[in-house]
Amino acid sequence: MSSDRIIQVERDILGKNDRLAADNRARFRADDVLAFNLVSSPGAGKTSLLVRAVSELKGSFAIGVIEGDQQTSNDAERIRATGVPAIQVNTGKGCHLDAAMVADAYDRLPWLNGGLLFIENVGNLVCPAAFDLGEACKIVVFSTTEGEDKPLKYPDMFAASSLMLINKIDLAPVLDFDLAKTIEYARRVNPNIEVLTVSARTGEGFAAFYAWIRKRAVAMKPATMTAAE
Amino acid sequence: MSSDRIIQVERDILGKNDRLAADNRARFRADDVLAFNLVSSPGAGKTSLLVRAVSELKGSFAIGVIEGDQQTSNDAERIRATGVPAIQVNTGKGCHLDAAMVADAYDRLPWLNGGLLFIENVGNLVCPAAFDLGEACKIVVFSTTEGEDKPLKYPDMFAASSLMLINKIDLAPVLDFDLAKTIEYARRVNPNIEVLTVSARTGEGFAAFYAWIRKRAVAMKPATMTAAE
Repeated sequence: MSSDRIIQVERDILGKNDRLAADNRARFRADDVLAFNLVSSPGAGKTSLLVRAVSELKGSFAIGVIEGDQQTSNDAERIRATGVPAIQVNTGKGCHLDAAMVADAYDRLPWLNGGLLFIENVGNLVCPAAFDLGEACKIVVFSTTEGEDKPLKYPDMFAASSLMLINKIDLAPVLDFDLAKTIEYARRVNPNIEVLTVSARTGEGFAAFYAWIRKRAVAMKPATMTAAE
Repeated sequence: MSSDRIIQVERDILGKNDRLAADNRARFRADDVLAFNLVSSPGAGKTSLLVRAVSELKGSFAIGVIEGDQQTSNDAERIRATGVPAIQVNTGKGCHLDAAMVADAYDRLPWLNGGLLFIENVGNLVCPAAFDLGEACKIVVFSTTEGEDKPLKYPDMFAASSLMLINKIDLAPVLDFDLAKTIEYARRVNPNIEVLTVSARTGEGFAAFYAWIRKRAVAMKPATMTAAE
């Protein structure tokens, strides 16, 4: 098979996904829903982080979660245990969520009018970077155990993300982890990336994460509503 | 685009790769080279593990290393600092090594007659599972920081691997890490997977890893050579 043919097929797939992602984005806007696409390596702690965040934010926002994994519904069950609705998407052989999967899962969530939608992507620092799901922005969760040079080695994902959450910061003292170097590398591939350090285990840093979310939520509200507050 | 067309293109890509992988396998056999394909999440510690292993095995075997990453030549440089030859392959947007990349890199290594070839794949627990590189077997490196359920969530990779190296075992005491559960989950998707625990930082467990390699090296030798030993 010619590489031209492969490139054409890739373009077709991405083009179709982009159209569906635009539809999702329009739906989220119509529902006044702020959607985040959480991406990371497997095991960086996205689900633990979400379990804490939705537990602590559910009093302030309507929240829904879409969970992506190749197999198992472990993550959706962990979210549901907090009382927040979650839809599990199993991608099978697939290495990322796509906009069609998110559209289908969003249909199955309760109406989140004015609320938050967290989409937890398949753990993969490569492929999800290329697939827009219609989210307001990508949040890359990076764990202190992964090594400082990952933003340089997987630049597309860090370039595509608006926020880097450096998780497992409680482990930093027992690791040879250099926070300043990690941030420097991330900003080398994305000068505008915001950075927060958190520990999903201890809760350290979550107040700043919630403040970041609230700021985004206010920014997206229609001007009339903002003026009324 | 129809999903039939996508499936046909995937089949074409995998079929072409399988043919090139068979060529690689024949070359490795002709050179009496034992080739391992190391796969893992980003940051599981493949390179640190290899730096230690090649340093300690280079007195016993001719060794070559092929390093895969989206970007940077950091890993090949770390290997070369040990005195062992290494070729860096940058996959750009690509999420895995393929057999053609390995064939090209193998051409650029010195002759490893009777030796070991370590191929470090792109950090990704999904896509490299489907791409045979011509290796004798896959070794999945799994770190104690990643959470016990990853073999269930990314089953293809654990099903495709002959050995699971559980790395960062020195961190297990400070984590909520359940070794028995991890092994149980891995064997649920692959009853034959062998398991060793190691720490690339402290060197714990490496003697058993080297014994595993030596056993494989003896097993692959032509019968005449084995009989002469």
